[in-house]
Amino acid sequence: MQIGMIGLGRMGSNMVRRLLRAGHTCAVYDRSPEAVATLVQEGAAGAASLQELVAMLEAPRALWLMLPVAVTDRVLEDLKPLLQAGDIIVDGGNSYYHDDIRRAEALQASNLHYIDVGVSGGVWGLGRGYCLMIGGEAEPVQHLSPIFAALAPGVGSAPRTAGRQGEASTSEQGFLHCGQHGAGHFVKMVHNGIEYGLMAALAEGLNILHGANAGKREHAADAETAPMRHPELYQYDFNLMEIAEVWRRGSVVGSWLLDLTAAALQHDPQLAGFAGRVSDSGEGRWTVQAAVDEGVPAPVISAALFDRFSSRGESEFADKVLSAMRYSFGGHYEKTGGNP
Amino acid sequence: MQIGMIGLGRMGSNMVRRLLRAGHTCAVYDRSPEAVATLVQEGAAGAASLQELVAMLEAPRALWLMLPVAVTDRVLEDLKPLLQAGDIIVDGGNSYYHDDIRRAEALQASNLHYIDVGVSGGVWGLGRGYCLMIGGEAEPVQHLSPIFAALAPGVGSAPRTAGRQGEASTSEQGFLHCGQHGAGHFVKMVHNGIEYGLMAALAEGLNILHGANAGKREHAADAETAPMRHPELYQYDFNLMEIAEVWRRGSVVGSWLLDLTAAALQHDPQLAGFAGRVSDSGEGRWTVQAAVDEGVPAPVISAALFDRFSSRGESEFADKVLSAMRYSFGGHYEKTGGNP
Amino acid sequence: MQIGMIGLGRMGSNMVRRLLRAGHTCAVYDRSPEAVATLVQEGAAGAASLQELVAMLEAPRALWLMLPVAVTDRVLEDLKPLLQAGDIIVDGGNSYYHDDIRRAEALQASNLHYIDVGVSGGVWGLGRGYCLMIGGEAEPVQHLSPIFAALAPGVGSAPRTAGRQGEASTSEQGFLHCGQHGAGHFVKMVHNGIEYGLMAALAEGLNILHGANAGKREHAADAETAPMRHPELYQYDFNLMEIAEVWRRGSVVGSWLLDLTAAALQHDPQLAGFAGRVSDSGEGRWTVQAAVDEGVPAPVISAALFDRFSSRGESEFADKVLSAMRYSFGGHYEKTGGNP
Amino acid sequence: MQIGMIGLGRMGSNMVRRLLRAGHTCAVYDRSPEAVATLVQEGAAGAASLQELVAMLEAPRALWLMLPVAVTDRVLEDLKPLLQAGDIIVDGGNSYYHDDIRRAEALQASNLHYIDVGVSGGVWGLGRGYCLMIGGEAEPVQHLSPIFAALAPGVGSAPRTAGRQGEASTSEQGFLHCGQHGAGHFVKMVHNGIEYGLMAALAEGLNILHGANAGKREHAADAETAPMRHPELYQYDFNLMEIAEVWRRGSVVGSWLLDLTAAALQHDPQLAGFAGRVSDSGEGRWTVQAAVDEGVPAPVISAALFDRFSSRGESEFADKVLSAMRYSFGGHYEKTGGNP
Repeated sequence: MQIGMIGLGRMGSNMVRRLLRAGHTCAVYDRSPEAVATLVQEGAAGAASLQELVAMLEAPRALWLMLPVAVTDRVLEDLKPLLQAGDIIVDGGNSYYHDDIRRAEALQASNLHYIDVGVSGGVWGLGRGYCLMIGGEAEPVQHLSPIFAALAPGVGSAPRTAGRQGEASTSEQGFLHCGQHGAGHFVKMVHNGIEYGLMAALAEGLNILHGANAGKREHAADAETAPMRHPELYQYDFNLMEIAEVWRRGSVVGSWLLDLTAAALQHDPQLAGFAGRVSDSGEGRWTVQAAVDEGVPAPVISAALFDRFSSRGESEFADKVLSAMRYSFGGHYEKTGGNP
Repeated sequence: MQIGMIGLGRMGSNMVRRLLRAGHTCAVYDRSPEAVATLVQEGAAGAASLQELVAMLEAPRALWLMLPVAVTDRVLEDLKPLLQAGDIIVDGGNSYYHDDIRRAEALQASNLHYIDVGVSGGVWGLGRGYCLMIGGEAEPVQHLSPIFAALAPGVGSAPRTAGRQGEASTSEQGFLHCGQHGAGHFVKMVHNGIEYGLMAALAEGLNILHGANAGKREHAADAETAPMRHPELYQYDFNLMEIAEVWRRGSVVGSWLLDLTAAALQHDPQLAGFAGRVSDSGEGRWTVQAAVDEGVPAPVISAALFDRFSSRGESEFADKVLSAMRYSFGGHYEKTGGNP
Repeated sequence: MQIGMIGLGRMGSNMVRRLLRAGHTCAVYDRSPEAVATLVQEGAAGAASLQELVAMLEAPRALWLMLPVAVTDRVLEDLKPLLQAGDIIVDGGNSYYHDDIRRAEALQASNLHYIDVGVSGGVWGLGRGYCLMIGGEAEPVQHLSPIFAALAPGVGSAPRTAGRQGEASTSEQGFLHCGQHGAGHFVKMVHNGIEYGLMAALAEGLNILHGANAGKREHAADAETAPMRHPELYQYDFNLMEIAEVWRRGSVVGSWLLDLTAAALQHDPQLAGFAGRVSDSGEGRWTVQAAVDEGVPAPVISAALFDRFSSRGESEFADKVLSAMRYSFGGHYEKTGGNP
Repeated sequence: MQIGMIGLGRMGSNMVRRLLRAGHTCAVYDRSPEAVATLVQEGAAGAASLQELVAMLEAPRALWLMLPVAVTDRVLEDLKPLLQAGDIIVDGGNSYYHDDIRRAEALQASNLHYIDVGVSGGVWGLGRGYCLMIGGEAEPVQHLSPIFAALAPGVGSAPRTAGRQGEASTSEQGFLHCGQHGAGHFVKMVHNGIEYGLMAALAEGLNILHGANAGKREHAADAETAPMRHPELYQYDFNLMEIAEVWRRGSVVGSWLLDLTAAALQHDPQLAGFAGRVSDSGEGRWTVQAAVDEGVPAPVISAALFDRFSSRGESEFADKVLSAMRYSFGGHYEKTGGNP
């Protein structure tokens, strides 16, 4: 099958490679000619402009956008006049599903199909395959099945779930038509919200193990510090690299994130290469906002999100307010830092 | 190697089976003669009392306790006079590591070795192997390596972590000597704390997907209810069974807990067989208390723990206080239920 | 000064009364003629329609809307053609500040001034005065100062803050021009968000005191329940009514919400009149969403919000997922309720 | 009445002053002779040693300890042999109620009475009075009523709660016998836990107001940063000092902590004198641990506690784990700081 890929960053390029390997035909475009040239060497057809790209494809065209969220709408604007009724645009970026709904509506007026695909897999997707969560009309989604199947990990990538019978569903191959417009990015959004929570749970647990030698540290015995009642219970110097490793086998917390954590600790046992300022790229925020809109509790995912904010210093003013109150009612000076 | 197993519940019985299959010799005891008889039929030597069990083993004896926490200390008391210097007691139950430290000290006076082992694997361990987190003196731990290796899942149960070289460590086989007395149960405790967080993250995310049709529901438009501003954004009827399935392949949230969730949803898509009263069996509580003692933040794990308490109705009085306040300052009546 | 009040519910009526007592002239309208008639008896001028109300007022007119959020926009639409350049509309309801910005812009085209006022005080405001948080252009806000001053509690309602000098600021009288359009409702929104947190902190604390006799309860000693390690430490039957009362004097937690709580416990020590289903009316949700938008952590306020959702059963599906997982990996049955 | 005060820090000294002003007789001891001398000048009788102090008092003696937690037990040991049956020891420090129970039992053997008193009021207590939460046997508590009454704020310090009738209870005077040994410090512990939550709610809210100009800041538009969708909604530069002030009058969040916050912001609007490293002195931790022991949810109080831990850098390792995972699965570099 033939597809046009727009945006040849880390994700887009590897997806083209995976499609080429599966025997699909790929025409590619990026504002960077180098990115295009690299993939041309690997078997893709290169375009120097959106016009050229569109001209390379046979109708009904399928164009896959793999772009930073901030530029997707601009490219869509540029693309729209070049297309014709029946063409399909796939947005595989990290779009907010609100935008999918809006875009699909706008494109429908020109008889263009819009499909939103949440893509999980990151830098590992080339070899491991991408998990695809898809939203939009049934027909164009069905039409692109061969592309989705080639990108997805395939049936063999996980043992069959007990109770599943007959031919493998697409979900068992690693792609799923989740519902109408926006459904793909909605499910991907929640997927990432869950990811925030899973990551935070692992990180907190490792931090508790990391602090298990707290009883060995000197503790100031003044009115400002709660003395540790039983320092003899916190005398453990745990080897986190080995613990992450052992949990990979047979334990309840086994997971791909744990595998990655074990590898990271293997590479740098103290994680000294990181400062601990944790970014967030939108989906966690949107998940919390969806929970609030729905009136559904999300204490774990929101705690995970807020921790990231705090890791970047965003609780500083709140903390100053707390210190100011403590000083006001109790004359408590901060242990370090200036005081009034 | 020869080992005596005390406690033949679901866990203990299956561990004996796994040891027998690996060619080890097992003498077994349980207060239920039926449980003993069953394993005798499968190749174990059965004892009718602790005395008999101890008599069946050659010194230095190795006795593995797989008991409910509430009875472990009593059995230890009964066992102690029957043993002799150099014998090894392994506690594989869900003991609090505080108890391990106390017991190890008490037994050391009689030159008995105490080893604490946190065992993960649940009802799946027989086939899948058990992840073993071990605490205690190096020598007896080393002595029991063949037992641990037989119970553990083995090297092949997970792909090798990048950067690992040479012979497989015990952690790569699925068991680890984590440190001195209590270290095994400490690591298992934190493991379970993480598990609480992982489970809650998955559950919250699925609940947000479950509520994604909230825009379809009628919403009361009175002063007591926040009207949904954009019901058109919450019109999705997601198939959670299929979503859990697709996430199993190539996604970032792939994990054993997700595998189990997918199977549970496959079996009962609405989970109608459950009421939603979630038990907790200690380790989550202890993890939060360790975090508090260490002064290490654990917002995600504690939120997960408190949700379980709430699921059992333990926030009821607090909620009544909130309703009483709302009534007091704003004359807000509860939407349902009696009012003053 | 002359003002027209639209909406004579609990809040609107009492505000009219407070204004009348202060010597202001009030024309009033409500879709309920009874509500109008009641206030006419108390000295207000009554109007049978918006037209009549507008006709009663001298230009530049000041119209204060005290309406349920769901109808404010409709009334604004009806009102707009009746007004003339320079007239002032005040929205004192619980509007989302997003709407204020939109409305102000729309009305500005007709040279109408829009002022948003967050009003705190609830059913107590008539006697106690209302705390007013105001957004909009400086001139019309300044113009309405006598009205704001009459509604506000006044300088004497709190001791002067140390360091304040000279003439009392409006904030010291109980009203404040917080900033441009939407600023009033933004500050009120956060005020309510804080209120959620304060209420939850008090409710949780009282719940912990309420549970301080947990050591007296029978606890099941099975593998599903963490046994209480030290029941002797939880043998207290606290009198919450008396504790709330004593905290009102000299303690750090003294607050108006505590005063209300003490009164509620005095009236009904077990709060048996409440079921514990806690409503939320929007501002808490908006506060969390503002925090998320700003990237500022709000773990306490969001925990308070999510607790309210949970109190209404919205965590049920998540809890079923947890029970299903526990059953899947450990064969744990729920303590009560059906099981698969 | 006559009382001996041991420990003349900020709290102890002011309590002596308040007792002297009420006409009580105070003998005082501190290891610092200067502290003793100061109070002697103000009318107390000074002792150079515990022996001397005990000798100054008539049986049954009442000795009030106002000491840092870390030294209380040592002083109790020194004091015990100097006392005789029927004497009363009051611990007014921040003891853990576990210790009260233990101490009361130990002293009971010598027929000494032990009373635990949680004291709230901080540096303001001298003028404002102290809120006293009392645990222990009824008789000695009753015996010391005049002392408690003198220390407490008195009936006039708060308006009477609706529904209260007849003579003022002790709770209406500001002191309360809460229950058996430890009850005073238990109630004080929860009081402080609530305080943590109240403080955090106020601090979070002010931080959200503080960040309400986030739309004005430049935001990096790269894949690592969620772009702000509606910067036009976050253009407010709020004057927090004025907002805290206006909330003091008529609002729902009115409280003594708000009064202090308003004063702190008046003194230093940016709170530049604080670094934001927030200490905790034990009661918040104990409150969370009590909640966990009881199985009662405390998400707000625990979030408040964990925020303090985070403010002191205790989440650093967890944050590094998160960054390491993000780098591993997505190749995400941290925005600042080193990277692998």
